[in-house]
Amino acid sequence: MNRIVECVPNFSEGRDLYKVEQIVQCFRAKENIKLLDYSTDKDHNRCVVTVVGEPEELKNAMVEAIGKAVELIDMTKHEGQHPRMGAVDVVPFIPIKNVTVEEADKLAKDVAKEASEKFGVPFFLYEKSATAKHRENLATIRKGQFEGMAEKMKESKWVPDFGPKTIHPTAGVTAIGARMPLVAFNINLATNDLSIADKIARQVRHIGGGFRFVKAMGVELEERGIVQVSMNLTDYTKSAVYRVFETVKMEAQRYGVNVVGSEVIGLVPMQALINSAEYYLRIENFSMDQVLETRL
Amino acid sequence: MNRIVECVPNFSEGRDLYKVEQIVQCFRAKENIKLLDYSTDKDHNRCVVTVVGEPEELKNAMVEAIGKAVELIDMTKHEGQHPRMGAVDVVPFIPIKNVTVEEADKLAKDVAKEASEKFGVPFFLYEKSATAKHRENLATIRKGQFEGMAEKMKESKWVPDFGPKTIHPTAGVTAIGARMPLVAFNINLATNDLSIADKIARQVRHIGGGFRFVKAMGVELEERGIVQVSMNLTDYTKSAVYRVFETVKMEAQRYGVNVVGSEVIGLVPMQALINSAEYYLRIENFSMDQVLETRL
Repeated sequence: MNRIVECVPNFSEGRDLYKVEQIVQCFRAKENIKLLDYSTDKDHNRCVVTVVGEPEELKNAMVEAIGKAVELIDMTKHEGQHPRMGAVDVVPFIPIKNVTVEEADKLAKDVAKEASEKFGVPFFLYEKSATAKHRENLATIRKGQFEGMAEKMKESKWVPDFGPKTIHPTAGVTAIGARMPLVAFNINLATNDLSIADKIARQVRHIGGGFRFVKAMGVELEERGIVQVSMNLTDYTKSAVYRVFETVKMEAQRYGVNVVGSEVIGLVPMQALINSAEYYLRIENFSMDQVLETRL
Repeated sequence: MNRIVECVPNFSEGRDLYKVEQIVQCFRAKENIKLLDYSTDKDHNRCVVTVVGEPEELKNAMVEAIGKAVELIDMTKHEGQHPRMGAVDVVPFIPIKNVTVEEADKLAKDVAKEASEKFGVPFFLYEKSATAKHRENLATIRKGQFEGMAEKMKESKWVPDFGPKTIHPTAGVTAIGARMPLVAFNINLATNDLSIADKIARQVRHIGGGFRFVKAMGVELEERGIVQVSMNLTDYTKSAVYRVFETVKMEAQRYGVNVVGSEVIGLVPMQALINSAEYYLRIENFSMDQVLETRL
């Protein structure tokens, strides 16, 4: 695969594993598609799939999976702890290799167009694909959930971007769009005082005046007797890992607190870490093409 | 390709491009083999090929290329500025992905065995494959060059590891073995005093009491009016990039000299830089499996 997009669709089925398998099957045994992971949660009653592939093949597989989910999942009977508004709740496309965010955006729109025409499901474009500021955030779009969406979509500001003007009777409505890879990055502090982690979190996160692409909160690590600034970096190319790290370290010093370590949770794009090496080692004129693995 | 070894054979032909093409052709249009680069130098009269592949296929292609070089290159007529002792002068195998240095070592020995039997060329095992301490260093093995090797190989300490006990009449003798990827890493200093770069180079390099896997020398960057500590890191997993960088920075401070930047020349394995990010960001329990690109 030369050009790679990642897709992490969330389906509103986490209990009937026979249905889950039929949906996941759409990503198996396909040329230029690789199913990396899928996990179900009974309490959330939800399935999260991670798949990578070439744009064209990924589009076809994703449209097929939406069709299967619309056929199998009945939202009028769905219950679970996780907020949800559709059988296919959200479909993010993430540029990974030799693909721009603009191309991931086009892919999201192509899938929305084709799937809305074929299956009669409405789509909201979100994140980098959003057509208005108030539609960028998934939580804002999803507010009211499946049960409230028919009423909400009567408002002119909630007319969907593709498909019918109201919900699909059993499959609800889907959010789709391009976003950057997420980096889950936590910084551990040498104190058990949660209020310090909370204060630092408020300072570095976007909503409190901090970095544009940082979400953060303070968390207690009870077993270790320390606290942590737990973060999601939603665009590491703009809000760099090293810059966030150094800022947290600096703020911690005001309380006489040291950084004891950090954690990267789950997968991280190579470039997010190499950017940090570049900064600390002061490397001049570095190009990602110099990384051996990008040439393979 | 799931398991990847890199091979960088050096052939003693850099002028007759028709001959070069015939040798390089052995690495083209082969399943699970990718020719990344090859370059010839007229003054050196030498060709350096960079190829990656799965171990088994790389072995077959390399044996074929040795046969072609033995057929086409006559060392009795070879002249060039670069030291050399054989038509195929040196063949390093470098573990890149899902391959251990032990497997690269086995590959080197398999190629040496097969090629020595087929083409009657003797082989010295060098670097990580060396069978004795005095045979690790290529320059030591090659001393005396093609013209002096027949005499040198009469000594019991220079009996080759594979093949006939003396040189091939026209193809000489070849060094082959496993080595780690090389990182060419230079650190630029805010001074035009070459003696400072020289002194630091002597302190960080192995031969002067420094790091085991660092070769270093002082170099003048005339255009920029600064000097540089120019280094080869021959095993970044043992002599880490960040540790060398911090040591050079520390030594420069004794002269009141700042590090203005650094350079990575050519290709660098992802892990060499990610290790540095891990150090500076103090990441706990990081695994290379968390790098998205390793999962593709």
